[in-house]
Amino acid sequence: MREVAVIGVGMHPFGRFTDKSIADMSREATARALEDANVKWKDIQAAYVGHLYQGVVFGQRMLSEMGYSGIPIINVEGACASGSIAFRECYYGVALGRWDVCLALGAEKMTHGLIPVPGMRPLESVMGYQVFPASYAMIFRRYHELYGLTIEQLAKISVINHNNGCLNPNSKYKLRLTIEDVQNSRVIADPLTMYHCCPNTDGAACAVLCAKEKASEYVTGPLVTIAASQLVSNSYETASVLENCVTKRACDLAYEQAGIGPEDLDLIELHDCFTMAEAWHLGNMGVCEIGEEGSLIDSGDIEIGGRIPVNPSGGLLAKGHPVGATGIAQVCEVAWQLRSHAGERQVEGAKVGMTHCHGAQGAACAVHILKR
Amino acid sequence: MREVAVIGVGMHPFGRFTDKSIADMSREATARALEDANVKWKDIQAAYVGHLYQGVVFGQRMLSEMGYSGIPIINVEGACASGSIAFRECYYGVALGRWDVCLALGAEKMTHGLIPVPGMRPLESVMGYQVFPASYAMIFRRYHELYGLTIEQLAKISVINHNNGCLNPNSKYKLRLTIEDVQNSRVIADPLTMYHCCPNTDGAACAVLCAKEKASEYVTGPLVTIAASQLVSNSYETASVLENCVTKRACDLAYEQAGIGPEDLDLIELHDCFTMAEAWHLGNMGVCEIGEEGSLIDSGDIEIGGRIPVNPSGGLLAKGHPVGATGIAQVCEVAWQLRSHAGERQVEGAKVGMTHCHGAQGAACAVHILKR
Repeated sequence: MREVAVIGVGMHPFGRFTDKSIADMSREATARALEDANVKWKDIQAAYVGHLYQGVVFGQRMLSEMGYSGIPIINVEGACASGSIAFRECYYGVALGRWDVCLALGAEKMTHGLIPVPGMRPLESVMGYQVFPASYAMIFRRYHELYGLTIEQLAKISVINHNNGCLNPNSKYKLRLTIEDVQNSRVIADPLTMYHCCPNTDGAACAVLCAKEKASEYVTGPLVTIAASQLVSNSYETASVLENCVTKRACDLAYEQAGIGPEDLDLIELHDCFTMAEAWHLGNMGVCEIGEEGSLIDSGDIEIGGRIPVNPSGGLLAKGHPVGATGIAQVCEVAWQLRSHAGERQVEGAKVGMTHCHGAQGAACAVHILKR
Repeated sequence: MREVAVIGVGMHPFGRFTDKSIADMSREATARALEDANVKWKDIQAAYVGHLYQGVVFGQRMLSEMGYSGIPIINVEGACASGSIAFRECYYGVALGRWDVCLALGAEKMTHGLIPVPGMRPLESVMGYQVFPASYAMIFRRYHELYGLTIEQLAKISVINHNNGCLNPNSKYKLRLTIEDVQNSRVIADPLTMYHCCPNTDGAACAVLCAKEKASEYVTGPLVTIAASQLVSNSYETASVLENCVTKRACDLAYEQAGIGPEDLDLIELHDCFTMAEAWHLGNMGVCEIGEEGSLIDSGDIEIGGRIPVNPSGGLLAKGHPVGATGIAQVCEVAWQLRSHAGERQVEGAKVGMTHCHGAQGAACAVHILKR
């Protein structure tokens, strides 16, 4: 396989944009990524597009509304991991020589309200498990009972990620919160309050990938390359509360592929759809032992400036979660960090970063390791 | 690139199955394909799943309901070409060494009525163009005016494809129709009557792909291999009535990739969502000159036993069109034909066959050439 570089990234800021269409946001993200990569549209040989709620032939409609068409366009879906899977398929297309220069776009417009999703099965919803806030509240209760994780420790994740979001111009929320602010926000699924949950969000993100051997035709300077790409699928019905096997399996495979361990990571962008999700994933990623999540949160290790900053972008909790865009926005953040372009939220000397998306309660988990 | 063989195919019959779930149908198609390929589930390294209306993480839900999970599962969407695109991504995964044995599944349950599709843009619908029967009625009127194509010639396509469907146990309809029957069925979009239009259908289809160099571990005898795979995308808004550029472009690229011309094809499974679609595509595929479609239909050339049988399976018109399943069902038919397993509808001595799916009025067109 050829080495593949992420030669350009771009985002439309995440937030609530009632006056913008999904095409407006996609255009802005794509234009920024193309400009960042110094690539013209005519150089793009294929596009993978991740989304969840935007309807039939979204990629074709979106790119043609932006004035682009003709190339193969493949829409992929994997719930909250849709963007990551688009990025992964794009990566393999370049790594295996199918194309030299390829684009991954993720976009979602959500703030016009919840959209009915055909095909979701009612049983888990009736049981409360597929109502995501409820399911994470249940996971917390179990972690509390078994490991002594406290709701205040979880609230601190929200405080940290919102602090990071204050440093990110692309973040939906820029809020300095206290643990009390988090705990005093309205209850969503007891004991999770609003600031324990990520918001519905509009946004778009784009990455341009290029065979490393061709990258010098477009960009100069140190390259961000992809050291690992893994996708693990599972039945969402059988996901265990205590062992998030897809995160563990996907990360273990990614560490093996990249030839590193979790101790070698300089930063992680992970799927903090709820504060409990971040705690859950940290143990399963090997950042700490399972059961030690509370101590890790208290230690300051996961803050910018700490041992292993997590979600320096603000994460889903603060930056927002426009479903299809999230996985590619994680790539944008890691690329900026590895290029030392992350401004006030820069993780000093970052050379290796990981992204992690977790779709439909474990039905799909996509993990990428990028390095400079 | 490695040569890739289609070592097994299987279908759940197309039709109306109110007592069966989409999982029931997918299980049957997949089990048949695995049995045909002599492959066990544990040998399958990845799955691509095409569908349109079945909701979030369909592939993961479907395969886990069937007892299968763990492998990477990628859901792809390209409107009516969804199944073909799943097949194509699967093909490249094997051809480029990402996997040795891989599965493409397409499935759709439609007969519970039309499903609202978020994201479709209203302008074309208001103008009548994205109401597909109306758009094909308009295309016919133009072909009639310019080239003298008659509605009776189009009706003959329906008669032929329904005759073929009578010979196919997997076909939804088994009707011997006359041109008068077609013309006397109820008007859908003047002058297209019901039998000019394909029906909403339930069904599933599956193909198992394997690196040719590994195929002897599973099957013996002559292999069906993939000689070309092309996907062309376009804006559906700008599709010209007279030049279906995506079909022409995709087929021209496929002929070049396979090193053949349309005269070398022994059969074609093409996207006859309407009789006019079949006529439209035949000219753009180079089976006849554009403008000569009427004479081609009259000649008998496209019937089983003729020069170039088209839709020996019955096509979308008779076999039915469960959207995500259609592209893979076309592959099943061509594979059976090339292996001389097509029973009464066998095209004698068939060695080269083409499949063609046309999604969202040209937004995505996927073409494959298979050979024995």
